Amino acid sequence: MGNSFGNLFRITTWGESHGGGVGVVVDGCPPRIRLTESDVQPDLDRRRPGQSRITTPRKESDTVQILSGTFEGLTLGTPILLWVKNEDFRPEAYSEMATKYRPSHADYTYQAKYGIRAWPGGGRTSARETIGRVAGGAIARKILRERWGVEVLACVTQVKEVVASVDPELFSSEQVEANIVRCPEADIAEKMISVIEQARTEGDTVGGVILGVARGVPVGWGEPVFDRLEADLGKAMLSLPASKGFEIGSGFSGVTLTGTQHNDPIRRIDGRIRTTSNRSGGIQGGISNGETIYFRVAFKPVATVMQEQLTVDLGGEETTLKGRGRHDPCVLPRAVPMVEAMTALVLLDHAMRQSARESASPES
Amino acid sequence: MGNSFGNLFRITTWGESHGGGVGVVVDGCPPRIRLTESDVQPDLDRRRPGQSRITTPRKESDTVQILSGTFEGLTLGTPILLWVKNEDFRPEAYSEMATKYRPSHADYTYQAKYGIRAWPGGGRTSARETIGRVAGGAIARKILRERWGVEVLACVTQVKEVVASVDPELFSSEQVEANIVRCPEADIAEKMISVIEQARTEGDTVGGVILGVARGVPVGWGEPVFDRLEADLGKAMLSLPASKGFEIGSGFSGVTLTGTQHNDPIRRIDGRIRTTSNRSGGIQGGISNGETIYFRVAFKPVATVMQEQLTVDLGGEETTLKGRGRHDPCVLPRAVPMVEAMTALVLLDHAMRQSARESASPES
Amino acid sequence: MGNSFGNLFRITTWGESHGGGVGVVVDGCPPRIRLTESDVQPDLDRRRPGQSRITTPRKESDTVQILSGTFEGLTLGTPILLWVKNEDFRPEAYSEMATKYRPSHADYTYQAKYGIRAWPGGGRTSARETIGRVAGGAIARKILRERWGVEVLACVTQVKEVVASVDPELFSSEQVEANIVRCPEADIAEKMISVIEQARTEGDTVGGVILGVARGVPVGWGEPVFDRLEADLGKAMLSLPASKGFEIGSGFSGVTLTGTQHNDPIRRIDGRIRTTSNRSGGIQGGISNGETIYFRVAFKPVATVMQEQLTVDLGGEETTLKGRGRHDPCVLPRAVPMVEAMTALVLLDHAMRQSARESASPES
Amino acid sequence: MGNSFGNLFRITTWGESHGGGVGVVVDGCPPRIRLTESDVQPDLDRRRPGQSRITTPRKESDTVQILSGTFEGLTLGTPILLWVKNEDFRPEAYSEMATKYRPSHADYTYQAKYGIRAWPGGGRTSARETIGRVAGGAIARKILRERWGVEVLACVTQVKEVVASVDPELFSSEQVEANIVRCPEADIAEKMISVIEQARTEGDTVGGVILGVARGVPVGWGEPVFDRLEADLGKAMLSLPASKGFEIGSGFSGVTLTGTQHNDPIRRIDGRIRTTSNRSGGIQGGISNGETIYFRVAFKPVATVMQEQLTVDLGGEETTLKGRGRHDPCVLPRAVPMVEAMTALVLLDHAMRQSARESASPES
Repeated sequence: MGNSFGNLFRITTWGESHGGGVGVVVDGCPPRIRLTESDVQPDLDRRRPGQSRITTPRKESDTVQILSGTFEGLTLGTPILLWVKNEDFRPEAYSEMATKYRPSHADYTYQAKYGIRAWPGGGRTSARETIGRVAGGAIARKILRERWGVEVLACVTQVKEVVASVDPELFSSEQVEANIVRCPEADIAEKMISVIEQARTEGDTVGGVILGVARGVPVGWGEPVFDRLEADLGKAMLSLPASKGFEIGSGFSGVTLTGTQHNDPIRRIDGRIRTTSNRSGGIQGGISNGETIYFRVAFKPVATVMQEQLTVDLGGEETTLKGRGRHDPCVLPRAVPMVEAMTALVLLDHAMRQSARESASPES
Repeated sequence: MGNSFGNLFRITTWGESHGGGVGVVVDGCPPRIRLTESDVQPDLDRRRPGQSRITTPRKESDTVQILSGTFEGLTLGTPILLWVKNEDFRPEAYSEMATKYRPSHADYTYQAKYGIRAWPGGGRTSARETIGRVAGGAIARKILRERWGVEVLACVTQVKEVVASVDPELFSSEQVEANIVRCPEADIAEKMISVIEQARTEGDTVGGVILGVARGVPVGWGEPVFDRLEADLGKAMLSLPASKGFEIGSGFSGVTLTGTQHNDPIRRIDGRIRTTSNRSGGIQGGISNGETIYFRVAFKPVATVMQEQLTVDLGGEETTLKGRGRHDPCVLPRAVPMVEAMTALVLLDHAMRQSARESASPES
Repeated sequence: MGNSFGNLFRITTWGESHGGGVGVVVDGCPPRIRLTESDVQPDLDRRRPGQSRITTPRKESDTVQILSGTFEGLTLGTPILLWVKNEDFRPEAYSEMATKYRPSHADYTYQAKYGIRAWPGGGRTSARETIGRVAGGAIARKILRERWGVEVLACVTQVKEVVASVDPELFSSEQVEANIVRCPEADIAEKMISVIEQARTEGDTVGGVILGVARGVPVGWGEPVFDRLEADLGKAMLSLPASKGFEIGSGFSGVTLTGTQHNDPIRRIDGRIRTTSNRSGGIQGGISNGETIYFRVAFKPVATVMQEQLTVDLGGEETTLKGRGRHDPCVLPRAVPMVEAMTALVLLDHAMRQSARESASPES
Repeated sequence: MGNSFGNLFRITTWGESHGGGVGVVVDGCPPRIRLTESDVQPDLDRRRPGQSRITTPRKESDTVQILSGTFEGLTLGTPILLWVKNEDFRPEAYSEMATKYRPSHADYTYQAKYGIRAWPGGGRTSARETIGRVAGGAIARKILRERWGVEVLACVTQVKEVVASVDPELFSSEQVEANIVRCPEADIAEKMISVIEQARTEGDTVGGVILGVARGVPVGWGEPVFDRLEADLGKAMLSLPASKGFEIGSGFSGVTLTGTQHNDPIRRIDGRIRTTSNRSGGIQGGISNGETIYFRVAFKPVATVMQEQLTVDLGGEETTLKGRGRHDPCVLPRAVPMVEAMTALVLLDHAMRQSARESASPES
């Protein structure tokens, strides 16, 4: 329970840090779409460890294989199994985790919930779980782009106290990928990198904020009342490891405005109905209004720190624990493709739901 | 599509501002629970319009009837239909809405999505839709309290720039209900009320923040990886009308801390494994850890203002629109029972999912 | 749990024989469809008791009301609540059921499962529950007919040992409605009626077989591998009260043929790919092939008989029970609209699922 | 869409006859259950080709690997990925299928639905798809046996016109496995084998009936009204390749009885409430009543015959096709473990649903 996401385009992820690997089953993918591993690998490369000096130095190539669902380079409409083998796994780096709970990790809650815990590498709580999401999301993103012209992207806008002011309408994928922290403002990116490197030097970690964006979404996606587009996006983002908050459009800062300040005036621009501001974040009443969708996701500082911390062991005795091994000092750069993947999964599912409704309407 | 919430304890809401009424079907309610209308009505009374001078003066008694699912005052385990008739409906107050889109409302997106729109009273986008949620949530809350001793409550902690500092552990339901704005700090509540009244005088509206809390949740509720407790709570809150943001525990402010500052130390207290701080917000790895669960929800200022605003009409021609009729200057006080209801629905569903798993485990 | 059917076009039924009534919420109905009570009432009239001398003489008008989901005679795309009030309810006819389990009814299993039982009228096991299905199915049937030209109908082909040989391609709705037993062969219908009347005279009951048919279904509906069209039809039929068996196409009798005898040859007829026989029943590999879909459903004899039967009481003591009150001697004539309704619900849901897939495919 | 089965214990199968293999993700498996490949392999061996002289001589070892979800031989409560590699695949045997539709196969419907078709080996319509079901079902069966003492088994009771009279209460797994056709009556089994061998000699195929049984199911499993136990069993069975019919208890033959003949008298036996006959098949009102659950499933003769048959090619031109390669003359012996697997999946899911309900009831 809980390992599937989506209704009509549904992913089911599986796998732990130990064992044969991690992956995903994608069910509901339309047929006749060109798909090979090369469509998925680039996003996995943006997610994988060891990609830069500010990520964990673990060496995992994260090479994806497609085991089912395609024929002669085209999707069949049948389930697609994507698989990444586990490698470079060093259980000895985790031996202390076998007997002690890491603070602000899920060690204790997993032990309490399941009565068993795969301590090597964190088991299912390992960030490797997100490989399946990124792989499935890469397919969704491709379909959105090719079929509807929708562009999904994300970038880092805050690391600790370093904040970039990024216009959701304007930044490009190239700008994001131009530096290792994935912030489209080059000078701010440098400061962010410094903050991350300093944290690592101190055996500490930092958090931040990612901006997620979808441009070109047609009017009419989103299902009131519970499956509003922002509700499904919020769930998607809050299911990512280390995420602590989500806001759409004006978000938390919008609450200090009055209604007259906050409302988005409606105008006719180039023959289309548009709003002249976008505090709504592209969604009104749970339904896309044709403006750019944008939202922010808060990620806490990584819980594994290289300093002594108070905890208890499995017997309930108080003790201390100091992180060892190779960990990220900041999750943000690698979380950018995760945010993109989950965004694409939400949007494609809603696109298909709206199509289903329209297909059964009169004059359709 | 989109009008059901929950898996094992599932509500399906129905109804618009016009028509025969609004309500909910509750499916999955356990049998043999004492249930009459009097278990549900109090929460509906806290939600209904006209309850105080800072809510809309519309007079709706919102009297609930149970049409099915009980016998001699006990639930049967069959679907419970709860119904509130529509009354005091004045379509003439909405006549301009028939031809013009209200800014930052869902008029335009509904029209575009469905090709039809029930303009009187806002149709399905009316706040009356939340009656079904509050009614269903009242049952869930009762079960959580009686069966697991879980206490679910919420309060207003911010209205525009007026902020109350409320400890999630300490405030009581009595304090919340002691004033009409539902902020447990009496002096701050007065300031909030003033801000709301002033906004109304100016024909304007304000937003704010609600704190949601669940105390006494056992360790082990929540389903990794997609149905994490905070992900489902986030979706639930972001599905509420006018909500724009959600954060669990330290939320957005936690991103400025380092890992060593943010982590919650684990200690043994009174024989139980506890954390000595609670920046995690009672959830780790998507699973409750036994600490108090708390989160914040941002609500934008009400979109209907009594001032002239730029918009277009159904023909696409530019025009202006000024709100008329009886509207809330601030949605926060009435949203408190909605936040409680949705919280209870999420928690009960997860409690049942965990029970199902445990029932099939060895030695269960 | 268990009171919803369908994915994209989903009904949730509610209500018992006692209480405020019975009904259904229809979620996922497309917008802009003409819909008033008069679209639904005719099928309810075909289902209601007291319609002929071979059904129970209970007088229930079963008048349906639409409480939500329409505006000015058109569907809104929002949930449609359909409600039929309970009337002419005589609990005294059921008083013995309060303390004794009726053989081959669900009295004992409901008591054991839920620990409580609404004995008057059978509670949720009352045939009144099917009102919601027939109401929801009437809408689905209308959409299938108007949007895709699909014709869904059913008829009685067997009552006890009286068997009619009906060609799925040829019988008409008019022929079915031409007599009270709903068998399109007039002379066989007379024999069926005699059998039913004789059973009633003897205080006994009879069962039979209904043939369900869908004509004009396009090629391509049905979702392998678990949601094959015949699997979903089978589930739909086996969820009807008193049903004991389902077979598609050649069904059980097909097992005595060899493969060369059973296979449907494929030919090109009038430019279309067709089969020259239809032992497949219009479905191959779980997907409609454009031929007429047909299947048979077995209904057991009604369990309530007017003769003394062995049973036990709630205390577990052995006793006897003799049916009282007004019951159907045969459920078949009233089950015809139920079979049609469930068939339409399955087909429409699959039509929408296929549309969703196609909408996301290249060149769509 | 359509490749998942179950709610709380859910399998998602994937894979085709070509490509990297076939398998299943099992989500919702309880933690702390002893599980290695050796728990699953025996049922796969009973399903695999080449196991006897009356199955296809294709040599596939169908060796299963567990890639995730276990640790040190115990389940973790996380998704279990089971994988069987493809081997001994000879696409040349299927070359004619690339251009011609096989009669009564799904070639044409897949082509029409998806606009693409993996012709080698039948793609997703290959019987290899059922490997995932059998693997997932083996886990469910183990849990049912160890946790609830429920015994799930099946046997062949009919091949063409050869019928065995098998008492659902009495036959044993050993008797079933004592011969290659899996009919517990040894002398009838011999006749069945002769019929199958003769069919093969003639280049023809035969069908038959499987009896499925579950003994020891507690009272109270099954969710009215749509998810009745027999409805979910029916769907499960009708989703199996080549199945054409399903009947529970008295089934189609029960329709010739009167109510007084058909009803199961209720008695108190050994302190328990029992029925003295079991025409209900262990289910009343959709809920298990504590008696043995039994049902029959009709399987059509295998569609691939070694004789010339009428068909059309992909261009729509009429032609003929004669089966080549290595095929089963009768699917029944290999379908026995499939029926058992699907039965176990349905029952375990319902056991968990009932546990969830009970956990939230008063005094639980």
